[in-house]
Amino acid sequence: MNHENDKAAPTIIVIFGGTGDLTKRKLLPAFYNLYLDGYLPEKFAIIGLGRTPLDNGAYQEKLKEGLGEFSRRGKPNEEQWEHFKSFITYLPSDVNDAASYQKLKEHLDHIDDQWGTRANRLFYLSVAPQLIAAVATNIGKVGLAADAAMDRIIVEKPFGHDKESAIELNRLLTRTFKEEQIYRIDHYLGKETVQNILVFRFGNALFEPIWNRNYIDSVQITVAETVGVEDRGDYYEGSGALRDMIQNHLLQILCMVAMEPPVSFDAEEIRNRKVDVLRAVRRLKPEEVHMYAVRGQYAGGWLQGKKVPGYREEKGVNPQSNTETYAALKLYIDNWRWQGVPFYLRTGKRMQEKTSSITIQFRPVPHSTFPQSKVGSLIPNRLTINIQPQMDISIRFIAKRPGLEMNLQPGEMVFDYDKCSTQTPEAYETLLLDTMQGDATLFMRADQVEEAWDVITPILETWATRDSLDFPNYAAGTWGPETAEALIAGQGHVWTVSPHLFENK
Amino acid sequence: MNHENDKAAPTIIVIFGGTGDLTKRKLLPAFYNLYLDGYLPEKFAIIGLGRTPLDNGAYQEKLKEGLGEFSRRGKPNEEQWEHFKSFITYLPSDVNDAASYQKLKEHLDHIDDQWGTRANRLFYLSVAPQLIAAVATNIGKVGLAADAAMDRIIVEKPFGHDKESAIELNRLLTRTFKEEQIYRIDHYLGKETVQNILVFRFGNALFEPIWNRNYIDSVQITVAETVGVEDRGDYYEGSGALRDMIQNHLLQILCMVAMEPPVSFDAEEIRNRKVDVLRAVRRLKPEEVHMYAVRGQYAGGWLQGKKVPGYREEKGVNPQSNTETYAALKLYIDNWRWQGVPFYLRTGKRMQEKTSSITIQFRPVPHSTFPQSKVGSLIPNRLTINIQPQMDISIRFIAKRPGLEMNLQPGEMVFDYDKCSTQTPEAYETLLLDTMQGDATLFMRADQVEEAWDVITPILETWATRDSLDFPNYAAGTWGPETAEALIAGQGHVWTVSPHLFENK
Repeated sequence: MNHENDKAAPTIIVIFGGTGDLTKRKLLPAFYNLYLDGYLPEKFAIIGLGRTPLDNGAYQEKLKEGLGEFSRRGKPNEEQWEHFKSFITYLPSDVNDAASYQKLKEHLDHIDDQWGTRANRLFYLSVAPQLIAAVATNIGKVGLAADAAMDRIIVEKPFGHDKESAIELNRLLTRTFKEEQIYRIDHYLGKETVQNILVFRFGNALFEPIWNRNYIDSVQITVAETVGVEDRGDYYEGSGALRDMIQNHLLQILCMVAMEPPVSFDAEEIRNRKVDVLRAVRRLKPEEVHMYAVRGQYAGGWLQGKKVPGYREEKGVNPQSNTETYAALKLYIDNWRWQGVPFYLRTGKRMQEKTSSITIQFRPVPHSTFPQSKVGSLIPNRLTINIQPQMDISIRFIAKRPGLEMNLQPGEMVFDYDKCSTQTPEAYETLLLDTMQGDATLFMRADQVEEAWDVITPILETWATRDSLDFPNYAAGTWGPETAEALIAGQGHVWTVSPHLFENK
Repeated sequence: MNHENDKAAPTIIVIFGGTGDLTKRKLLPAFYNLYLDGYLPEKFAIIGLGRTPLDNGAYQEKLKEGLGEFSRRGKPNEEQWEHFKSFITYLPSDVNDAASYQKLKEHLDHIDDQWGTRANRLFYLSVAPQLIAAVATNIGKVGLAADAAMDRIIVEKPFGHDKESAIELNRLLTRTFKEEQIYRIDHYLGKETVQNILVFRFGNALFEPIWNRNYIDSVQITVAETVGVEDRGDYYEGSGALRDMIQNHLLQILCMVAMEPPVSFDAEEIRNRKVDVLRAVRRLKPEEVHMYAVRGQYAGGWLQGKKVPGYREEKGVNPQSNTETYAALKLYIDNWRWQGVPFYLRTGKRMQEKTSSITIQFRPVPHSTFPQSKVGSLIPNRLTINIQPQMDISIRFIAKRPGLEMNLQPGEMVFDYDKCSTQTPEAYETLLLDTMQGDATLFMRADQVEEAWDVITPILETWATRDSLDFPNYAAGTWGPETAEALIAGQGHVWTVSPHLFENK
């Protein structure tokens, strides 16, 4: 494949944290797949920065290994790799040392000279959150990001630790970069199924007329993981499920489900409509928090045939830790479309199943035409968007059970992504290509980040006031604490466990 | 399986035309399957009437052969058949001879005596249309249908030859039978997928809000056959596609698609709502007929690898025949829900494919959010209900094509009946059981028949005024005459050929 029209201008990618996990697992496989699919410009360079002293060859070899392990295409073909690796160089450097930035500048200028053109520069900050501001400032000091149209900085979450620190981070970043140069990555937004939410809603005339409080009873957004904190205990202790998942991924999905129709697919327009949703999310008063938010922490248990430790036994975790590994919220959106419709968000580690899904629960029929005796189960319609690992959209509806009597039963209409694609690109491929092409639609703008923090601030603050909690309160391999059931049972709702009635695979 | 609660009271079925094709192909297999599925009462009898002199054994043997050939379950199990055949007796008789009815009466009374109870009596009139009135009158004369609650008469189409004759037939029938005793069979209404239309519409809150002129652009109802007139040339010469198919099957399906929500599933309520639709169908003025109706007649041609004759060459057909074997109509329903939405109906013999389906074409999105350049094909949503031979419901919608770019493509959600049922009952099983249970919901009431005739009367009358037509005007194995394309092209529409985008089987 060749995508002449989609190819970016000459581009240099500078990865701060070039020897880190993200580079090996996600960034390099993404660039390599973009290369194979013909999306990279001919004039292209990746510069890895790191403290480890390595020469180019050793660095390339390290990345090649990662490719074999983490690329969706597996081990690279030797001939293709030989060409691709020529893009990659390594620059030992210290992010806190001004001289390193001078050296980087010389390297970049040298490449420009060689190419005979000023290349676009993308600075990928795959570094600890507390280093982001320093790196950005240093980049600015040596004048590396001088061209607002050509130079971009890519930042990974967390975007701050709370609303104040997020505002401060945005302030520091915008001293060096213009807002339109800043690409805040939420990799969830790059997923095929997430991107498809907007197409599904606004590419079809069928769903929008019923996409409101008149027809929708409630919405559930679930991001469940089976993994625990793994080797991120240290980091996670200062974060927790609310900061780590809900502030970004789940609230962003909420925005896509709930937003008003955008006038165009323009980045500012889409992000304006999303931030409208966040602004309309009802803010909780501290004394209400317990009625709208539930937290949990996993105990040890059995998960898929393996004994796993509790959170408090994990490496880097305080044995009396109060950090939540599970959070569930009930949110309301105070606007005409959604007044009174509860949005249930939940995420957790060590859940029974790995699944990310959105469930739109419709109201029952206004009047039942069918005699009660003949109605097997006149359950209301439900639309499910499975994001991962299953990727599909399905509608549960009522049909006549084939047979001589007028008995009703739920049936399901399914649209399965697997049927229409052999290889779905990884979220990072989408997002890195977008960055190179200067399309910020799927990235978080400063105001989105700040509004999202604002939504969860009352919960963060209220939760912080309690010193000792009855943690752990759910066993690994379950669907979270009992209190989460109680949270939504009041409205007569239950958490959706199995998104499908029938097995489709 | 045993269905104690659904079992009918002691019942005697009397089949006029007991040696005919319908009995062998449809009625007996249906009763036999009802027997196997436990729906028949213990006190049950089938009495076949016919002119041929046969004894019971010979008659039973004849029906057993038909079973092997036409039952969805194939050849009967010997043990089960031995029991079932004991229900069946044969009575040689002449439908025009009063003595035959006297003999039948004695036979029925004798069975009642044996059973020690007055059994329900079902008179199935599988006789030539011109005999229906005579048989009904004779049944009445000997007092066989005296009990309005227990005795029923089942009549096969055609229900008259035009509006006047239909009214006259209904008048004659109601001299002997009350309207609620008369079961006019339209076997299309017994099909699973047709019955499901009402469940789909009124068992789900999802579809009704968009089921109107604001969201629906047009509706197509197609009943296409690959067969020609076969050995029915004689009959067909006096009928044609409009009388044979549209007056009954297609207009009935139209009613189910277009009707207002019924208060209950009560037979009178359902039929009231259906007849409301027929009353609202805009009547054509003679001078408008050519703009709303198209007829065709098949020429010889090749169909599925076989050379087939033209209609005018068929046995029993006038070599200058003007009888239409294809008809297409554009109808409008003058009410609030459907004003301005064209309903396209078509049916034909010797079509390219055997298929019965309903297509609900939705309007395009009111505003396209996506850049024109990125939109592969932003075609509007379409809902397809396949009645036969494929039995499914599908929604065509727009999704993102998996990949790095925001390209759109049509996808499909499918609900496949085959997935949730092993054996779907035949329409006649449903309808005969309903008759035994006294449920007239799926049967045609006199006013429905008369309104349906009224809808097509202007077309029948206008068509009758032309003496010589440019027939044949379509080749066997095609989708009908070119004029049918022109009929709907004016509104920018095309006939739906393949109901599915992807193959699902």
